[in-house]
Amino acid sequence: MDRLTIIKVGGKVVEQPDALDALLNQFKKISGHKLLVHGGGKTATVVAEKLGLETKMVDGRRITDSEMLEVVTMVYGGLVNKKIVAALQARGMNAVGLTGADFNLIKAHKRPVTDIDYGFVGDVDDVNVSELCLLIEENVVPVIAPLTHDTKGQLLNTNADTIASELATELSNFYKVFLFFCFEKRGVLLNPDDEASVVYDLNLSQFNEYKAEGVISAGMIPKLENGFRAKMKGVQEILITNPENISTGRGTRLV
Amino acid sequence: MDRLTIIKVGGKVVEQPDALDALLNQFKKISGHKLLVHGGGKTATVVAEKLGLETKMVDGRRITDSEMLEVVTMVYGGLVNKKIVAALQARGMNAVGLTGADFNLIKAHKRPVTDIDYGFVGDVDDVNVSELCLLIEENVVPVIAPLTHDTKGQLLNTNADTIASELATELSNFYKVFLFFCFEKRGVLLNPDDEASVVYDLNLSQFNEYKAEGVISAGMIPKLENGFRAKMKGVQEILITNPENISTGRGTRLV
Repeated sequence: MDRLTIIKVGGKVVEQPDALDALLNQFKKISGHKLLVHGGGKTATVVAEKLGLETKMVDGRRITDSEMLEVVTMVYGGLVNKKIVAALQARGMNAVGLTGADFNLIKAHKRPVTDIDYGFVGDVDDVNVSELCLLIEENVVPVIAPLTHDTKGQLLNTNADTIASELATELSNFYKVFLFFCFEKRGVLLNPDDEASVVYDLNLSQFNEYKAEGVISAGMIPKLENGFRAKMKGVQEILITNPENISTGRGTRLV
Repeated sequence: MDRLTIIKVGGKVVEQPDALDALLNQFKKISGHKLLVHGGGKTATVVAEKLGLETKMVDGRRITDSEMLEVVTMVYGGLVNKKIVAALQARGMNAVGLTGADFNLIKAHKRPVTDIDYGFVGDVDDVNVSELCLLIEENVVPVIAPLTHDTKGQLLNTNADTIASELATELSNFYKVFLFFCFEKRGVLLNPDDEASVVYDLNLSQFNEYKAEGVISAGMIPKLENGFRAKMKGVQEILITNPENISTGRGTRLV
């Protein structure tokens, strides 16, 4: 099977033009097939605020009412996605920007209301990569925004780490998939203030211990849970790192 | 050659959910390959206003400074485009939403500043339909937003009628192309207040007369100029009509 590298970028890496440029320069150096999944960073929050909408987050997840869904559709599907596409084209990569609605790529359902009503947030049901594979074989670089749909016309806001893991899992039926979660830190840190405290190899039982001890917390937990699930379902390698270390392969490796 | 129907929708048809639904229901009935090009209607103006940006139009064209470019990228490339894609998927059509930057589809240059500085408005240089044809052959329905790029990383705002005509012209090398400019009127009207005054067949010399007399004016002029140019370059049929008459083929036919 051919190699396919999936890079998920989020946080400051997509918010700051310089950081994004640096990432895309690293991305260009990756040989073989590649695919980019992006979050929206704080851009959606900034645009929402300008539009007079208040951002509410629960456990790092955005409460998405119908007005906020319009904002994330604009920001993730339009602004961030198409800027990245244009920037990749400028670097000689033939990119195409997609959401989970395009090609019926990612089918999801609206998260049921329990204690919390997340609004138009989608949990993934199904991934269809037929057209994606066709394009990857033509050396097209897909750029995926964190939006899905319910196949009945409703767009949904879905976590970008989840989308990266789900795509990696499904694509591992066709490619040897290397999944890199790329953000501003060098990997999973035992002490968030100390970049030298990177855990280089992390297995599931260690992760569960760290989680129980509160050493690993917040947004890192779903990222790692997604990562371990993908690893168990056949993704070749999963690395959590920063843009500078895409090429060195240094960072936290799930084992 | 296979038949390919290109529908360009704009005006109230994209602004009003009911009108858009009606259009998409008609669009579903078209047999053979099809492609949709959309404008943004007044949605960009509404969003810009909410963001505190003033919309300036010259001859029906939007002055696009860098902030307005962000708005049209969000609204055309994200909000309007992805809503249409999700709505087509709901109707069983396998749609993909694209801009001119995706697949390097439409290369443009920033319009030179003369008396008027249009800002980040792009005039089309080149159309590349390789990947588009590949997808059309897979029965994918492309949905194109009116954005282009300069291949150096700059997105540009480009008139949707122009995009439809340029795509129709290039795709007529591969398909028998039927291009429908679809809006709220039944066609070109000799009296804008009288729907019964439709000109059913319009040739270039009649158009030039009507233009000189001021009978045809405003946004209809570039639409028709684009249309006649596409017709002369090999597009099979060009019709200006409303959603209801896509199936009947009644409206203004360029001859």
